Amino acid sequence: MVEPYLKIRNFTEELCQPLAKEDYVIQTMADMSPAKWHLAHTTWFFETFLLKKFQKNYKEFHPKFHYLFNSYYNGLGEQHPRTKRGDLSRPTVGEVFEYRKYVDVAMTELLKKTDGDDSNFSFILELGMNHEQQHQELILTDLKHLFSCNPLYPVYSSQKISTVHEIAKMDFVSFEQGLYQIGHEGKGFGYDNEFPSHQKYINGFKMASRLVTNGEYLQFIEDGGYSKHELWLSDGWNVCQRERWEAPFYWNEKDGEWLNFTLNGNVKVDLHAPVCHISFYEADAYASWAGKRLPTEEEWEVAARSKPIKGNFVENKIYAPIPINGQKDEISQLYGDVWEWTQSPYVGYPGYKPSEGCIGEYNGKFMSNQMVLRGGSCATSNSHIRSTYRNFFYPKLRWQFSGLRLAEDL
Amino acid sequence: MVEPYLKIRNFTEELCQPLAKEDYVIQTMADMSPAKWHLAHTTWFFETFLLKKFQKNYKEFHPKFHYLFNSYYNGLGEQHPRTKRGDLSRPTVGEVFEYRKYVDVAMTELLKKTDGDDSNFSFILELGMNHEQQHQELILTDLKHLFSCNPLYPVYSSQKISTVHEIAKMDFVSFEQGLYQIGHEGKGFGYDNEFPSHQKYINGFKMASRLVTNGEYLQFIEDGGYSKHELWLSDGWNVCQRERWEAPFYWNEKDGEWLNFTLNGNVKVDLHAPVCHISFYEADAYASWAGKRLPTEEEWEVAARSKPIKGNFVENKIYAPIPINGQKDEISQLYGDVWEWTQSPYVGYPGYKPSEGCIGEYNGKFMSNQMVLRGGSCATSNSHIRSTYRNFFYPKLRWQFSGLRLAEDL
Amino acid sequence: MVEPYLKIRNFTEELCQPLAKEDYVIQTMADMSPAKWHLAHTTWFFETFLLKKFQKNYKEFHPKFHYLFNSYYNGLGEQHPRTKRGDLSRPTVGEVFEYRKYVDVAMTELLKKTDGDDSNFSFILELGMNHEQQHQELILTDLKHLFSCNPLYPVYSSQKISTVHEIAKMDFVSFEQGLYQIGHEGKGFGYDNEFPSHQKYINGFKMASRLVTNGEYLQFIEDGGYSKHELWLSDGWNVCQRERWEAPFYWNEKDGEWLNFTLNGNVKVDLHAPVCHISFYEADAYASWAGKRLPTEEEWEVAARSKPIKGNFVENKIYAPIPINGQKDEISQLYGDVWEWTQSPYVGYPGYKPSEGCIGEYNGKFMSNQMVLRGGSCATSNSHIRSTYRNFFYPKLRWQFSGLRLAEDL
Amino acid sequence: MVEPYLKIRNFTEELCQPLAKEDYVIQTMADMSPAKWHLAHTTWFFETFLLKKFQKNYKEFHPKFHYLFNSYYNGLGEQHPRTKRGDLSRPTVGEVFEYRKYVDVAMTELLKKTDGDDSNFSFILELGMNHEQQHQELILTDLKHLFSCNPLYPVYSSQKISTVHEIAKMDFVSFEQGLYQIGHEGKGFGYDNEFPSHQKYINGFKMASRLVTNGEYLQFIEDGGYSKHELWLSDGWNVCQRERWEAPFYWNEKDGEWLNFTLNGNVKVDLHAPVCHISFYEADAYASWAGKRLPTEEEWEVAARSKPIKGNFVENKIYAPIPINGQKDEISQLYGDVWEWTQSPYVGYPGYKPSEGCIGEYNGKFMSNQMVLRGGSCATSNSHIRSTYRNFFYPKLRWQFSGLRLAEDL
Repeated sequence: MVEPYLKIRNFTEELCQPLAKEDYVIQTMADMSPAKWHLAHTTWFFETFLLKKFQKNYKEFHPKFHYLFNSYYNGLGEQHPRTKRGDLSRPTVGEVFEYRKYVDVAMTELLKKTDGDDSNFSFILELGMNHEQQHQELILTDLKHLFSCNPLYPVYSSQKISTVHEIAKMDFVSFEQGLYQIGHEGKGFGYDNEFPSHQKYINGFKMASRLVTNGEYLQFIEDGGYSKHELWLSDGWNVCQRERWEAPFYWNEKDGEWLNFTLNGNVKVDLHAPVCHISFYEADAYASWAGKRLPTEEEWEVAARSKPIKGNFVENKIYAPIPINGQKDEISQLYGDVWEWTQSPYVGYPGYKPSEGCIGEYNGKFMSNQMVLRGGSCATSNSHIRSTYRNFFYPKLRWQFSGLRLAEDL
Repeated sequence: MVEPYLKIRNFTEELCQPLAKEDYVIQTMADMSPAKWHLAHTTWFFETFLLKKFQKNYKEFHPKFHYLFNSYYNGLGEQHPRTKRGDLSRPTVGEVFEYRKYVDVAMTELLKKTDGDDSNFSFILELGMNHEQQHQELILTDLKHLFSCNPLYPVYSSQKISTVHEIAKMDFVSFEQGLYQIGHEGKGFGYDNEFPSHQKYINGFKMASRLVTNGEYLQFIEDGGYSKHELWLSDGWNVCQRERWEAPFYWNEKDGEWLNFTLNGNVKVDLHAPVCHISFYEADAYASWAGKRLPTEEEWEVAARSKPIKGNFVENKIYAPIPINGQKDEISQLYGDVWEWTQSPYVGYPGYKPSEGCIGEYNGKFMSNQMVLRGGSCATSNSHIRSTYRNFFYPKLRWQFSGLRLAEDL
Repeated sequence: MVEPYLKIRNFTEELCQPLAKEDYVIQTMADMSPAKWHLAHTTWFFETFLLKKFQKNYKEFHPKFHYLFNSYYNGLGEQHPRTKRGDLSRPTVGEVFEYRKYVDVAMTELLKKTDGDDSNFSFILELGMNHEQQHQELILTDLKHLFSCNPLYPVYSSQKISTVHEIAKMDFVSFEQGLYQIGHEGKGFGYDNEFPSHQKYINGFKMASRLVTNGEYLQFIEDGGYSKHELWLSDGWNVCQRERWEAPFYWNEKDGEWLNFTLNGNVKVDLHAPVCHISFYEADAYASWAGKRLPTEEEWEVAARSKPIKGNFVENKIYAPIPINGQKDEISQLYGDVWEWTQSPYVGYPGYKPSEGCIGEYNGKFMSNQMVLRGGSCATSNSHIRSTYRNFFYPKLRWQFSGLRLAEDL
Repeated sequence: MVEPYLKIRNFTEELCQPLAKEDYVIQTMADMSPAKWHLAHTTWFFETFLLKKFQKNYKEFHPKFHYLFNSYYNGLGEQHPRTKRGDLSRPTVGEVFEYRKYVDVAMTELLKKTDGDDSNFSFILELGMNHEQQHQELILTDLKHLFSCNPLYPVYSSQKISTVHEIAKMDFVSFEQGLYQIGHEGKGFGYDNEFPSHQKYINGFKMASRLVTNGEYLQFIEDGGYSKHELWLSDGWNVCQRERWEAPFYWNEKDGEWLNFTLNGNVKVDLHAPVCHISFYEADAYASWAGKRLPTEEEWEVAARSKPIKGNFVENKIYAPIPINGQKDEISQLYGDVWEWTQSPYVGYPGYKPSEGCIGEYNGKFMSNQMVLRGGSCATSNSHIRSTYRNFFYPKLRWQFSGLRLAEDL
């Protein structure tokens, strides 16, 4: 396991290549964390849950890092407050890279001598690697926020994302009503919130063949979508008015034209690209405006499983999510574009049990007030995606790479 | 329909008998409204949705009341802000009672000449009466809050609630897994959020035969339940700490003894009575502490239907919620004690459509961030209760008569 | 002293004649108090500082009123929070009037048997009466705020204030530089903050012969005064922008015309009447715009003493505030129109000592962050006014009857 | 003038020698600014007020810096919000140093060709240098705050400040009443707020011969000074309670002992050193506790002028601040220890006029709600100090190097 471990660890550092030291330390809002913190926290995860438990005589790198880089594991003691992650100029970036190196050396040693038989060890190792992938995604999300707050509009990457020149018509693929098996079947890695696999009765539904585009969303804006209360959930309408939303998060108007702040800088809105950086409330209001609705997370999973996905998940074939009339494979843009808001509040599946011990704080305690997103975005590692993956954010958040796909009743 | 209409209208006014004029006008927090506002708003409902639409030449009582007493129907124009309901010393209480009389006279006239054939009229009439019953409950809930803010501890009713002297053992009644029919079947009145009736696959579960008592909850407190983060959802833990919760909302310690502020004044906590005025977060934490969980709203409905309830709902017999081993009827305290928090976020049932027109704002737009409560409390009118009724509040709210029942997997 | 005592007490109640019970209880912002509270607090003052100290065997009216109606005397124990004065529907208005009667009976008895020799008693009695006069003024100020929050625009008094038909030209009266005696000389009542009388060197200055009018202030508005940062103090500019000020507090625009909410209801702005309900920041910005400045409190006092005032203060003739060229008596509108903002922060005079004991909290502890106002408004009792009187409010407050007079260097 | 200009500019950069790049960018509260911002803003000052006006064909370094590094000069256009100074990772520290170099080269050229005859140029040049000295002080103040927020307690300078081993007895030096000349007489540099020189009548007073020490302040703490409301101004008491003050800002208790976070790290409180980092409210409460009072700013100035000070100010001899009985020179610790809170609100002197143009925003617009401090702290450049200097901060601020000296009436 040394190789996959190091591959993931190195990729995190590669993501930081374009950064100046000054870019690593700033926290521009409570929901984002400085890149330096992500680099250290992911390292802390391996140090805490693996090295301290499985490596004899392991000596921690620094006595205060346990406090500074614990995110939210109350079972491990107090933490530096989340909103104060940007108050720390020290440890320096250099020291954090040394911390990473120190832990990687110890982990390499540990991995070499551990055979794969300890299932608890293996589970936590895999969890740690998936955890680091989640933070890789967050590094990009958070840097985008950081740079967007700067009137100089810094460019993270000058490697241009190519413009989408055309986009297929949006079709609606039909799925039959029935009792479906939902959740992770147990082969390959899955977070505890993907379990247990269980049965769910689903009415017949139709799922859009692709995501909603910026161009389509622009019609919603131009039709006054942001000022029509009747399209909005009450809580969403309140936040929309209070925060004066009038377009997706990173859109900004200049000389009568909509620009979009991206990791490439501030560019013209690409009309054929999926709309991105919208809240659940906006996704829901758009769906109402379009005369459709958001899918439930189970509908999404059923639709996604009709289409094979490359990844670490061996597709489960026990149940049969059958598109009517053999429309299989017609659903596109499931992974690697934007996270897709569903209409499902994030709760435990029937029979859900959090993992044992402190690691149980990973997912379970967040099961209130958040909404499930499915799929995966352009910032998500390919190997980190699967059809049962449940991402979740508060419905008002917009700094994630989040968009939407429409659905409707059959 | 004149008689049932007037019966409900009169009962609202009876609830206000014990009040001084000063008690009608004050708003002690954003979530509560002054009794005067409830008296006027329920009247506005009939004036707006029935008299103005169905009574020829109806002249509204006052041109500004449309603005003052519209609660949240954006489709009907702007409203006086919710948080400013307590800023209004005028209209006086006397004027509001005149408004009620004026509308009741007009309604009586209208009801007499309307035959029951207009189903839209009948639906809105019934909705208006149920709406007024909801506000009867809120009048009590809100007066309790008002009085609790007063160091003189005013007594709403000196008719003593009798102490509960003993309570049965808590049993767990088992229900079989299967595909159940959930929601309102269409006979008798139901709010739009109880529709459509639909199928839900439910795993086998057990439901507690009665509610959790104050005495049992006190053990949770004494065991440090309010300081054990591991029992709490993350959002709940934050609010618990921020607001320094350490007991149910109206409990207050005096000379080392727990008192409970009630509509009878500040009295000793009744150990056998159901615990009340707790948030969803506290209910959930208690269930974790007890090694159980909260029921889903569908489990609650299945369990409740095994027990006949007197009311305006003719019990639907299409599906069969069958307690295992014929334990039918063993579940007690379903209605008329406290609202029971479930673990279900408040969302639309599959295929849910809000009512047409402005009345569609009644329920649908609130379907985010709230949790479903089932049953009905001591403040709820008996005729306002049924097994499919879905009440909902934000998970942190505690001023409602809300408690909990435990459940567990089979 | 029975007669003057009862005269003042009765006048307070006369001010409440036009009120409905509902008008007595509401608190529409933290800075205002319900009329009921003023009625009780002024009574509490006599009960606490006179009856409890000087009346043998006096039995307090109610054991909790000491807590409820103490305003801010920490030396007397904890108080009901200022921002919660509007949470109390009880005691009822009727009970508060009983409280007043009870205390008035006891006070009458006490006054009859006390000869005037106890100077401490006399001082507190006089303080209590002046205190009640301050609250008479606050009752009107606060009712105005209450009614202004009501879209029905209730009218406190239908006795119309007559429109001002013309106004004299604004002259500037000159005063010579020199060493002046400032503060209260000791004859007649004065608050501790008017003492000690002391010397102050004042440069030559000119004082406007009258107040700034609404019409003149309107020119400031129309010239963009509220959007010209260069006219404003930095703190003032911040609050002006944050609270979106664009006119005096009670002005409201309707169909392109400025209306002014008054105790007579919402009426056309009277162009010749003094501008009123402006903050210190607005007064200061207006003065900058006009190329003048606000007077210091000492300049105001010097100018005011050149003009005799009827009242309880025997004018002190020790020093000689001499207008140059015998312009004596040309300064008008000093008392009974609006409180006049000065440019002087409220601090103790050189050698200032607060009164002994709890009564020392009356004035001294407020000597930071507030500005001095001089004169007296239309809501101030005539007998409560004198040239050494120092009123004070925070510079951003606007709910007082506050306006301005211009000054400039000689 | 090239040499003094460069000397000051270089000293600013020397202060940054101990910093890592990460230390330059973070803003830990609204009142402080990142070192990078100070470096750029002081440069912007010279660029804006001198190079752009006096250097022909000057090309600004970067078109956005005008927006980013304008502090509060509304007359020059909009500014990047003060509270967002810590959101900017770019320009990098390196780029800011390049900006400094670019401006210094241009300034050197300009200074060489400008003879000293243009008094406006000279005034602004001197203002710019004094301005930079003010920011040198702020760099240290702000870095102290930054480091104090870090649980690693970074050390700015390892050059130890030596412990004070003993301290002289506190004497009170007497000064006679009389008419004194206050303010700057015009020789040497002074800010506009030090003008005009004017007469002030001052009662006889006594001034403490030295500052209050940590040891003395500790007695105040141990005597319950932070919980005795009677010692505090009302606004001060509110903030003391709300922010739970119980010691000077950087004091922290560890194992029952008071430590003090300093630029040397977290060290034992030095009992003989002057108490520092206290608010005006604390200074005032301490003085009340000690049975004394704070001096007025004019008393301070009179006392300070009895003692010669080395600096850029040629001492004015027109008036005679005469200590009674020839106690001249007995007053110590006037400059270079801590800023001394006075009881004087910060307002303009009689006849004060702000400088013309945008530079007029330097001081005048801040003349409300702040208190004057006199003297100068250990972080103040020696050449930046004089007896007429008026520093000012809001009374609740504690992050400055601020302490107190006692005074009393004669």
